Amino acid sequence: MKLKDIGEFGFIDKISRGCLIRPDNIVQAIGDDAAAFKVEADKLMLVTTDLLIERVHFLRDATSGFNLGYKSLAVNLSDIAAMGGIAREAFVGIAVPADCPIEYLEDLYQGMKSLAAEFSVNILGGDTVNSKTDLIINITVTGTVENSAILLRNTAQVGDVIYSTGFLGDSRAGLHMILNEIAVDSLALKSLFKAHILPRPYLQECRFLAAHEKVHAAIDVSDGLSSDLGHIVNESRVGAKLYASKIPISRQLKAFCARFEFDAIEFALAGGEDYTLLCTVAPDWAEKIADEYADTFHRPLFPVGEITDTGKIELIGADNKIQTIIPTGWNHFGAS
Amino acid sequence: MKLKDIGEFGFIDKISRGCLIRPDNIVQAIGDDAAAFKVEADKLMLVTTDLLIERVHFLRDATSGFNLGYKSLAVNLSDIAAMGGIAREAFVGIAVPADCPIEYLEDLYQGMKSLAAEFSVNILGGDTVNSKTDLIINITVTGTVENSAILLRNTAQVGDVIYSTGFLGDSRAGLHMILNEIAVDSLALKSLFKAHILPRPYLQECRFLAAHEKVHAAIDVSDGLSSDLGHIVNESRVGAKLYASKIPISRQLKAFCARFEFDAIEFALAGGEDYTLLCTVAPDWAEKIADEYADTFHRPLFPVGEITDTGKIELIGADNKIQTIIPTGWNHFGAS
Repeated sequence: MKLKDIGEFGFIDKISRGCLIRPDNIVQAIGDDAAAFKVEADKLMLVTTDLLIERVHFLRDATSGFNLGYKSLAVNLSDIAAMGGIAREAFVGIAVPADCPIEYLEDLYQGMKSLAAEFSVNILGGDTVNSKTDLIINITVTGTVENSAILLRNTAQVGDVIYSTGFLGDSRAGLHMILNEIAVDSLALKSLFKAHILPRPYLQECRFLAAHEKVHAAIDVSDGLSSDLGHIVNESRVGAKLYASKIPISRQLKAFCARFEFDAIEFALAGGEDYTLLCTVAPDWAEKIADEYADTFHRPLFPVGEITDTGKIELIGADNKIQTIIPTGWNHFGAS
Repeated sequence: MKLKDIGEFGFIDKISRGCLIRPDNIVQAIGDDAAAFKVEADKLMLVTTDLLIERVHFLRDATSGFNLGYKSLAVNLSDIAAMGGIAREAFVGIAVPADCPIEYLEDLYQGMKSLAAEFSVNILGGDTVNSKTDLIINITVTGTVENSAILLRNTAQVGDVIYSTGFLGDSRAGLHMILNEIAVDSLALKSLFKAHILPRPYLQECRFLAAHEKVHAAIDVSDGLSSDLGHIVNESRVGAKLYASKIPISRQLKAFCARFEFDAIEFALAGGEDYTLLCTVAPDWAEKIADEYADTFHRPLFPVGEITDTGKIELIGADNKIQTIIPTGWNHFGAS
């Protein structure tokens, strides 16, 4: 069945079910010119938006609707996590080419709704239109955060320890598998594939970090460790030192890189789409906070380096050789 | 110059200037994972989002960047107006094909910024990505409205007088001129062209309407009078009667329809993109409110009909013949 068979409003009726899962504070959900809701008086409002374009960000043939919907929302939730916030409402703009079956779109909404439900996020509105060629998804997510807890990029301090909430580079390996049609023939490959396809936003973890005033700055790793740390360094007007030996590489990625002859550190630095959080923590508090974090989430905070005053990012190799790295993560238009 | 010559971050630097024009209450504008701002404690938050796709909603060759940027924002501001709100922050997602010159994009942002400045709207964030074929623009606008003032679609009451804040059908004539490459060779044609290209959101007028508790329901005319009144009728579970003789047709549209042999009422009913507000007003208060409106804005509120209990929309012709009309405005996928 195609969209033109049921029309825009038939489609909206179909996908609206299960979108409003937290009705408190919602005055108007899907179905008017705009959504309307109450925001807690003492909170800041957060807004983030992401465009996903077929043939640029995803290949429709290579991804299920469910996975595409899940990831489209996940990358936005990750942005709210990077601010230390609670994700609240999502708005979904979708442009649909004539050849896209409605079952694919329903599956796509299923993917979004499944992730939204897990984090108590309402899908509160959007826009549904035609497209000539490509499937296009725009998601906007709002969140809230206490003024005192907000995690910014420009507040890192010299001496801070830099942590990542998870492994880096796995997603790049998953992307390589998709682009090169490598069969998911082991648990290790499955885990890398999943890291790329179903990234989990660190929305609980970010609240722990935001509650600590000694956690100074944060960003999520969307473009790669070097590029995203580069944003913190530039915005905070500091520098950073990374220890190659400390960069958290999963055993799955190690196995993958051994098998396909890639450099895991390179994947971590420039791969992107890991959607872990990078945060910087005052050195006197770093260990205590990392211990508490591990106790709470039964997963480590991985220290990867320190904030310096050099104005550049330096990578300390296994041989103690210092290499200045130029951010090489994903630049959407290919220029530096 | 192309985007790849200056890169994503170079482009963001370029277009960020002049985006933050109302810095009070803004904690984080462009440049972090999400924007962060304060919302007045006693207000509801409004959010609306619209996707505009090249070759579906606009032809790049037939519109200047400025006009495209202006209209992309205007249609979202109109949604906030239809809720009775104050527009506050805009978020711009843009997907750019390789052949799109940067000058066109700068012009596009100029168009948005010019309208944004007029209504004190900040451009507070967005997303800038590649596209394979089409230029794609997604704008999300937030606004605020008092809980007591919000204008919904589902609150029309039987007996209400239906008003339009402006002429209907002009935009359809403008679109016809563009699609048929009709030269803008008179002031009349220029006015119709402008109605389509540079629709003005009724953001001041909506506040007047929202302040009156006897104004019961509202919507903006994006899909056509019959389709948008259809939303009010369906959502409010009422009916409506329209008087063909009262539907506000500009003298420019009359001249256009005489010259090109079109039915002006048909344009008003099914044309769409007029972005006037339709509102319904308690009958005892209707004239008083319309008079006050005219005194305030030096422009009339046009009465076009009444809310009935029939469950359908009836058009009373010049000959007093009653015709039941089925909403025929723009359905984005061509089915009813």
